[in-house]
Amino acid sequence: MSSSDERSGPGKQRSGNDAGQRLLAAARATFAELGYESATVRTIAARAGVDPAMVNHRFGGKEHLFTAAMAIPVDPAEVLPGLLGGDPQQLAERLLRLFLEVWDGAGGGRFAALVRSASSNESAARMLREFVQDVVFRRVTEHLGVDHPELRTALCATQVVGLGMARYIVRLEPLASADHDTVVRTVAPNLQHYLTGDLG
Amino acid sequence: MSSSDERSGPGKQRSGNDAGQRLLAAARATFAELGYESATVRTIAARAGVDPAMVNHRFGGKEHLFTAAMAIPVDPAEVLPGLLGGDPQQLAERLLRLFLEVWDGAGGGRFAALVRSASSNESAARMLREFVQDVVFRRVTEHLGVDHPELRTALCATQVVGLGMARYIVRLEPLASADHDTVVRTVAPNLQHYLTGDLG
Repeated sequence: MSSSDERSGPGKQRSGNDAGQRLLAAARATFAELGYESATVRTIAARAGVDPAMVNHRFGGKEHLFTAAMAIPVDPAEVLPGLLGGDPQQLAERLLRLFLEVWDGAGGGRFAALVRSASSNESAARMLREFVQDVVFRRVTEHLGVDHPELRTALCATQVVGLGMARYIVRLEPLASADHDTVVRTVAPNLQHYLTGDLG
Repeated sequence: MSSSDERSGPGKQRSGNDAGQRLLAAARATFAELGYESATVRTIAARAGVDPAMVNHRFGGKEHLFTAAMAIPVDPAEVLPGLLGGDPQQLAERLLRLFLEVWDGAGGGRFAALVRSASSNESAARMLREFVQDVVFRRVTEHLGVDHPELRTALCATQVVGLGMARYIVRLEPLASADHDTVVRTVAPNLQHYLTGDLG
């Protein structure tokens, strides 16, 4: 994908770093107004006064721009293929290990910021909803080929978001300080049930 | 428990409704400063300028005052005995049905307000933590006589809080609009596993 373009956008005259910051701000505003689905790279670029090609050049597309704008410390497009590659019956364990590595590493404050936005702002809640549904778990359930993919997606989200709340925000011990093996050993069977078990 | 008292507190000269409002405000401030455990009825009453006996008379004690001050729409002291009375293997189902009745009835906004406080304020997070641990789930795990009561408490909280997030805040479909039977059928087995299952 080329970053050159025939049109010379107004962003071209400013520094690249400025343009990146404007893009992130425009992305946050546009995702909040229109939601993840309806926001287009073209709209966001126009709002930032930069060329749409720059989004692909600097961020690699809408999904990456979203994770950058929301300060989500992992890019699903990068990690999902690896996660989906192994034994489907151990997918919950791999998802949980990734979740813990990412959010332990980022510090609980970033998880709290995400939850605070979602609980105080319908736009942020919608973005998080669409991201969790469309970007993360839809790919997982499609890959698994299971029944009730939407319901399983939502059920998985209850467990993963609830784990984040207990570990990083409400800080319920002994879970908040538990090592990854303990969390995985106790939570993975339940998450796996939502992914591939009989929903009754 | 008598509401009369030999001492004549300053609250006696004001209207009962005023005193109730002052008590709720003093309770919120004191719980936030000291946490649920350390806040005493005596401290809260002194701050509100009312007699401690009035707390028992109007609210029935510290726990009821807390649920009133936090606008938690159910009083664990009232409902837990009934919940704990039945078959322990169906306790998760009874807990979930109560959770759904309470929060569906109160409207998702009140759940969102609770989560927003906890995610933006360490005092609110501590109050929620102590309430979930000491008032709700400790009684449940003590009643059950299970191993790892603290860990089970925290794991139950991940599922119940996560369900509330998905249903009332992020509004993940089809879970957000699902009837109670569907939620109970899909979630209760996992919650029951945290209550009484083998944690590995």
